[in-house]
Amino acid sequence: MKYQIIFLLAIIALTGNSQKDSLTTRKIFNTALLSNQIYEDLGVLCKESPGRLCGSDNAAKAINLLSGMLKDAGADTVYLQECMVRKWDRGKIEKCLVSSKSGGTFETDICALGGSVSTPEKGITAQVIELKNFDDLAKAGKEKINGKIVFFNQPLNPEHYYTFNAYGEFAKLRVYGAKEASAYGAVAVIVRSMTLKTDNQPHTGIMRYKDAAVQIPGAAISTVDADRLSLSLKNDSALTVSLTLDCKELPEVPSYNVIAEIKGSEFPDEYIVAGGHTDAWDNGEGAHDDGAGCVQSINILRIFKQAEIKPRHTLRIIMFMDEEVDQRGAKKYAESVSQKKEKHILALESDRGGYTPHGFSMEISKELYEKVIQWKKHFLMYGVWFFEIGGSGVDVGPLAKLGIPCMGLVTDSQRYFDIQHAPSDTFDKVNKRELQLGSAAMATMIWFFDQYFAQ
Amino acid sequence: MKYQIIFLLAIIALTGNSQKDSLTTRKIFNTALLSNQIYEDLGVLCKESPGRLCGSDNAAKAINLLSGMLKDAGADTVYLQECMVRKWDRGKIEKCLVSSKSGGTFETDICALGGSVSTPEKGITAQVIELKNFDDLAKAGKEKINGKIVFFNQPLNPEHYYTFNAYGEFAKLRVYGAKEASAYGAVAVIVRSMTLKTDNQPHTGIMRYKDAAVQIPGAAISTVDADRLSLSLKNDSALTVSLTLDCKELPEVPSYNVIAEIKGSEFPDEYIVAGGHTDAWDNGEGAHDDGAGCVQSINILRIFKQAEIKPRHTLRIIMFMDEEVDQRGAKKYAESVSQKKEKHILALESDRGGYTPHGFSMEISKELYEKVIQWKKHFLMYGVWFFEIGGSGVDVGPLAKLGIPCMGLVTDSQRYFDIQHAPSDTFDKVNKRELQLGSAAMATMIWFFDQYFAQ
Repeated sequence: MKYQIIFLLAIIALTGNSQKDSLTTRKIFNTALLSNQIYEDLGVLCKESPGRLCGSDNAAKAINLLSGMLKDAGADTVYLQECMVRKWDRGKIEKCLVSSKSGGTFETDICALGGSVSTPEKGITAQVIELKNFDDLAKAGKEKINGKIVFFNQPLNPEHYYTFNAYGEFAKLRVYGAKEASAYGAVAVIVRSMTLKTDNQPHTGIMRYKDAAVQIPGAAISTVDADRLSLSLKNDSALTVSLTLDCKELPEVPSYNVIAEIKGSEFPDEYIVAGGHTDAWDNGEGAHDDGAGCVQSINILRIFKQAEIKPRHTLRIIMFMDEEVDQRGAKKYAESVSQKKEKHILALESDRGGYTPHGFSMEISKELYEKVIQWKKHFLMYGVWFFEIGGSGVDVGPLAKLGIPCMGLVTDSQRYFDIQHAPSDTFDKVNKRELQLGSAAMATMIWFFDQYFAQ
Repeated sequence: MKYQIIFLLAIIALTGNSQKDSLTTRKIFNTALLSNQIYEDLGVLCKESPGRLCGSDNAAKAINLLSGMLKDAGADTVYLQECMVRKWDRGKIEKCLVSSKSGGTFETDICALGGSVSTPEKGITAQVIELKNFDDLAKAGKEKINGKIVFFNQPLNPEHYYTFNAYGEFAKLRVYGAKEASAYGAVAVIVRSMTLKTDNQPHTGIMRYKDAAVQIPGAAISTVDADRLSLSLKNDSALTVSLTLDCKELPEVPSYNVIAEIKGSEFPDEYIVAGGHTDAWDNGEGAHDDGAGCVQSINILRIFKQAEIKPRHTLRIIMFMDEEVDQRGAKKYAESVSQKKEKHILALESDRGGYTPHGFSMEISKELYEKVIQWKKHFLMYGVWFFEIGGSGVDVGPLAKLGIPCMGLVTDSQRYFDIQHAPSDTFDKVNKRELQLGSAAMATMIWFFDQYFAQ
């Protein structure tokens, strides 16, 4: 009889918890869906500080804007954490002229890859060799490549359901294409934009010279113009391309992570981190990448305040600086956590665009996963169904290396690479409700950790 | 020992099936993701026959276009099924002027509701009473309403995760607002657009007079202008609105369902149906509603052909006519099925926009559901996770009444009501991959029924 009563009490407690969990989840989602502020914040960020590449004036402006938004959302404290960042400047000239006997001369839609050196002032004019990948470089050899512009024309494979997998498969062509091609005597590289969309938007992104003996310029070409150049090459393999870029690398400058906190009521020295990255490529508004992640993280504070949920652990919201180039902000923050031996129970980032949230990809222990998966039922009614062990994200990456449980918000990825790193990554591409729901999913996951981690 | 062997064989058979299922699912999705034709078809439909309201010239044009697309996709036969349809014409004048003492005179973004009568040629000028719902009508009573324009200003509730639930909650204000208000002596109704978006797009949709004693005109007002009108009324409750519409109802005309078939190899007299609706409101391109559902259904044929999957049952792809007004096409088809006693094992429709597919809502028996749910694991890796008993859809509705297993493709609904029945429902709002994935999900469900229904 005694056992029976205990068992009954356990059931009641469980039911009580489950009901509380369900009601809190609902409260969080309703709060998010009823407030427009997150959307207004994103509009301000995109329109007042578009193209906020690290080291730029617009990045500095964004730091101020985001600090203000964090205060308005209800942070107890907002402060800056300094880190040095590279300052690469795109310059003003991005020109690519194709001259062929059969097709005449035409200009293509290109842009410099981030971190590229410039061409000489008069540009580089050379013949072009079209290749698919690094194996092709070796096959072609120095003889065929020397003195030429290498055109990596590798379309992303649409067969991947998760477009991040399609991107991940060939992104190295953009990142290391110049380094690899220069070893064969190439004078420049032109890389097909890393997108599944057929349009005239060149998509930039970081490139790295690493230990390349010779640094040659790198540019992205739009998919429409990549197809056109490829066709022109079929008709006239001896055509020439004139590429002119005037980008340059300036001395490093100081910049900042923006950090905001709501002090925990029970465990003020234990932290739950959520964040996005302030910086964005200079050719667009950085709406989905990663303005969305920033305002979603800020909105977590707002949701907790508006729903009158007092966190037991300290909530730390971070606007990381410099995700796109060298992740100096992320590294700096992890370094500080390590030095101060701060206990972190979760670090969650949003950097896959402000699209409908599908779930979470997690770098956590199997034991913790078993706990997390029990909460899934409360997320399901908001379409949040994906709970998988996997990567978390670039900005929380250094924290994952410290053994901190890390997660990334997984969103509907179908439209992400249509706009990533392109002029088309603008505010009008973000749907308010999709943005709100992502923030609610993050706030809910944080609430569950805050509530149950210590149990 | 004997039992053990049998058990082993059973496991092998199961594994073999499961592997075949998985490989076929992959083949279907890959085929869909590698072909652009579905997207090109939608572009042609939207640009060559936008606003294809039943009875219109553009609807007739669409019937021809869709017939051609069905043939090109690989149908054995394509034929038309006649049905009479209403022919409502919007006319050319849709004008709403607000005149207030404090705010002067301004014009608002409105459009006639589908099926509305016109105003007198000089319009209707009257004072306005703002109400939320039908209860408010009763509360206000004849005295306050008589001679006035009733303005139903009920925003949809953003707290619903599924936007179709938000729409469903108040759509009756649009459908029956004029009927209800006229009983209290109202001279016209203006209804806030049934959208969660704040913009200047008036969203039309059907209205019904049913057994109303007096037929008064009905118009939709954009959400931006609904807010403006509401604010103006707060400042000047005696303001007047002048509403002018010249829409009219013409005599009924013949129209057609377009039906295409691939004959089943084993059960030619058993049918699997998939479809969308040809007609679309006359103020937009009908891209998501329901051009997407049409080309997705056509694409099922293409996928089967390209992937060299021969259906055992006869596949019947139907472009239903007149979903938006009276569902004459759907009724006609069901009537024919009933008369001919045709055996249907599944009817599946797509009419929730060409957005990322989430799953299926099903009107099927519990026994069949248990079978279907076993296939879910093969869908999951393509983000298709929602398998629930519930409604199927308007066009397969009459088939569900006959006891036929019916389903509707469930898509990400967050953006649907941004564009539904509005000028903004245009081709550029459709993402190619989202569209392809929806078609693949439909083709996969059909393949599973075709494969396993008879077992």
